[in-house]
Amino acid sequence: MTRTELIATIRRKKSLLCVGLDTEEQLLPEHFLDESHPVRAFNEAIVEVTHPYTVAYKLNLAFYEALGDEGWLDLEATIAFIRSKGDCFIIADAKRGDIGNTARKYAEAFFDRLDVDAITLSPYMGRDSIAPFTGRKGKWAIALGVTSNPGAEDVQFIRTENGRPLYETVIRSTAKWGTPDDLMFVVGATRPEVLAEVRALVPGHFLLVPGVGAQGGDLQAVLKAGITADGGLLINSSRGVLYAGQGDQSIPAARAAAQSLQREMALALSAAVG
Amino acid sequence: MTRTELIATIRRKKSLLCVGLDTEEQLLPEHFLDESHPVRAFNEAIVEVTHPYTVAYKLNLAFYEALGDEGWLDLEATIAFIRSKGDCFIIADAKRGDIGNTARKYAEAFFDRLDVDAITLSPYMGRDSIAPFTGRKGKWAIALGVTSNPGAEDVQFIRTENGRPLYETVIRSTAKWGTPDDLMFVVGATRPEVLAEVRALVPGHFLLVPGVGAQGGDLQAVLKAGITADGGLLINSSRGVLYAGQGDQSIPAARAAAQSLQREMALALSAAVG
Repeated sequence: MTRTELIATIRRKKSLLCVGLDTEEQLLPEHFLDESHPVRAFNEAIVEVTHPYTVAYKLNLAFYEALGDEGWLDLEATIAFIRSKGDCFIIADAKRGDIGNTARKYAEAFFDRLDVDAITLSPYMGRDSIAPFTGRKGKWAIALGVTSNPGAEDVQFIRTENGRPLYETVIRSTAKWGTPDDLMFVVGATRPEVLAEVRALVPGHFLLVPGVGAQGGDLQAVLKAGITADGGLLINSSRGVLYAGQGDQSIPAARAAAQSLQREMALALSAAVG
Repeated sequence: MTRTELIATIRRKKSLLCVGLDTEEQLLPEHFLDESHPVRAFNEAIVEVTHPYTVAYKLNLAFYEALGDEGWLDLEATIAFIRSKGDCFIIADAKRGDIGNTARKYAEAFFDRLDVDAITLSPYMGRDSIAPFTGRKGKWAIALGVTSNPGAEDVQFIRTENGRPLYETVIRSTAKWGTPDDLMFVVGATRPEVLAEVRALVPGHFLLVPGVGAQGGDLQAVLKAGITADGGLLINSSRGVLYAGQGDQSIPAARAAAQSLQREMALALSAAVG
């Protein structure tokens, strides 16, 4: 999905919502466990009710790899189901990062074989670990900038020579390895003041923002710090949607949770576009 | 495999060799393409002839993920075959790194399901992305320190407040999240002077050293900079072994390449133990 198409989808759905399919078999409502592929069936039910409110879906690879080859089949089936709904941006949350020849293999695995729109990447190995994912029409690299977890401070906030935190230098450098048409940054919702700084640093780039909900990030603060006239944000909720309700109520509750997030986003979008 | 068992294997085999199974279907000798599972058959042939000279095997996940669910089955089958040879240390070269709950899922995927001894990890997300992989008897986290690629300089060599390159602070911090019994560092062969510095920084830790051969690293320089009385190094060769010869000669050539590397290592080990 190109930037123009992404912005059009955001405007049409009046939403910046990304639903994170971090699906865990042991957390599924009981009635899905009778299905031949419980994870797949649950994902499809979630996508079915949330896609009108949702711009993007993010699949966290760890949860599928933990199920081995069956997990890969669940991943492929879920992606195909999302595609069948049309106009959804699909993110493989894989946080890969490796030397040039290996990065090219990952690009093949994710863009050609799995056919996702974007993959999250760690910038620690530098330019040749990121560049193989950029420059392909409609495909995106999403580089880690500032993450939402407590450990973010251990490395990303190390002070560099100029007295500023490391993530600033990393984001400035990484921005040179792609363009706002093929590169986004991950910036966690748990530090809205940092999100505002990053927005100033890369005003034209989309930011993928995890950490709203279960991790403690506040949606209004995120919108205030990061929204642009193009939207400029994909705001992820995983557990807050997937596990919004229990038992028979899980799927209706997921729909309600997604719709409620979308309504808040619609108000902010309408104000930002002016 | 525990540290004691790893050191015993190094002494018995008189080797520090790690063979990287970065297997690409399009580079396989023609006679493997008739097999029902060409990658698996090639890997088994390589392991069969190299294991007497080899302490560790490193499987680069990108090359298997590029083949989808079939790739995962190849990965599982190759790991089972290596296990059947006894006393080999198995590394998943996955360079993962994610928030705590996801890191625990990856630990489950790699340690419990795939049953590897070690997984490579990116330290950019800090303590909670590394700690879930340590503290399990016989299982190892291998954190990226200084990588062998050109892009290493973009982030790892950024000067921090104290005027020193970032990788020093990262390695010092990461060393606190594990012990020499469950934590190693990746240090590329392409900068032996940096390897010597890292050796001084973490004298008791094993270092996984990629980049000998195709990437230009020099084996003698690596041995001089990093060897300890325990061995202290796992030195990886991938393309230099896998593609040492062509056609019918590929497997005998791989054996000869592994044996030749092992002989150089045996001399250095005998000198280091004294």
